[in-house]
Amino acid sequence: MPGPKQDRAIRTRRTILVAAASIFEERGYQAATISEILATANVTKGALYFHFKSKEQLAEGVLAGQHDNLAVPDRPCKTQELVDTAMLHAYHLQTDPMVRAGARLALDQRADGVDRTGPFHHWTTIVTDLLDKARNQGELLPHVNPVETAEVLVGAFVGIQAMSQATTAYQNLPHTTSALLRHTLPSIVHSSVLTSLDLTPLRALAVHAETQSGTA
Amino acid sequence: MPGPKQDRAIRTRRTILVAAASIFEERGYQAATISEILATANVTKGALYFHFKSKEQLAEGVLAGQHDNLAVPDRPCKTQELVDTAMLHAYHLQTDPMVRAGARLALDQRADGVDRTGPFHHWTTIVTDLLDKARNQGELLPHVNPVETAEVLVGAFVGIQAMSQATTAYQNLPHTTSALLRHTLPSIVHSSVLTSLDLTPLRALAVHAETQSGTA
Repeated sequence: MPGPKQDRAIRTRRTILVAAASIFEERGYQAATISEILATANVTKGALYFHFKSKEQLAEGVLAGQHDNLAVPDRPCKTQELVDTAMLHAYHLQTDPMVRAGARLALDQRADGVDRTGPFHHWTTIVTDLLDKARNQGELLPHVNPVETAEVLVGAFVGIQAMSQATTAYQNLPHTTSALLRHTLPSIVHSSVLTSLDLTPLRALAVHAETQSGTA
Repeated sequence: MPGPKQDRAIRTRRTILVAAASIFEERGYQAATISEILATANVTKGALYFHFKSKEQLAEGVLAGQHDNLAVPDRPCKTQELVDTAMLHAYHLQTDPMVRAGARLALDQRADGVDRTGPFHHWTTIVTDLLDKARNQGELLPHVNPVETAEVLVGAFVGIQAMSQATTAYQNLPHTTSALLRHTLPSIVHSSVLTSLDLTPLRALAVHAETQSGTA
């Protein structure tokens, strides 16, 4: 069990990352400075450098931190678990500055020196794993290659969210996520699975509420 | 017919846009300066301001200019024309700095004051138009809503190209474009259309060669 000192270190690290996320989101990676992040986080330079040695490390912390609260409860149907993972991420993009900053950094070509492939690989691994489980349960069509399908779904979702950000400030994201799933899942899973799925945009809020209530 | 003066003005405008595209691609929108664009284009300040009043107008010119050479010849099968439009765009992203700069600007959240929704709407209009034609020829499944499907395809392609840029510097883009089309078209067109389509990655280079040879 972590003691009070570790607790405080974890809280400080989180405070710094939230501040970095807001500055990266507001100013872009290149223009953001460590001084601004220090001022926003209201921590000492020593505390910041204890956790992060450079702006690159801060960006990588934000990219990793966007995944902290994204766990969807286990579902009997792995395809529904995949749908719910996308829907919950859509909800977090609408509501969580850390998740938004991570998505933005991954698409920021000016973020020189930051490993921007991390989030793409992270998500591709998560989706491949869910597709492997779905295949083992007989949910997938026989021709599906889980890695290729995961790359298509992750790449497509990245674009859907960027378009939703640019055109509606994320407001229509649950709807376009639902539309993306309706356009791709028929090429991936058996029709008997399709008929049991909940792909409606309302799913985004419902899954979030479920993760918060602890009833999962 | 344009005279020599107009010809020169068109060439100068194009020179300025190519220079702006390379500076925006290299430095990002926010960091780019008009002085750098002037130096790269090697034109006078007066010539530049004759065509573009501000950095915003230059960016919008680049966003519009990326579409200049994207015409796929008319096809009897409108679904194939849609496939070829995506494949040709994939080829231009690999080879044309103007197209790359346009794609980058559309995803650049630091490009304050630039209407970044332009390219999304432009492409959604083009794809909706092709889907309308495909529907009139009986190629589409009855439930398809061309505007919704166009938004899914454009958003998904934007993400596929961003992921390809970040992970392989566009090298695998014809392959991931092919994979995206194989995952979405079965939900959009009749199976009798699917069997007649060429969705292979080689299509990208083939369509480009066709547009260059003038045999179309």
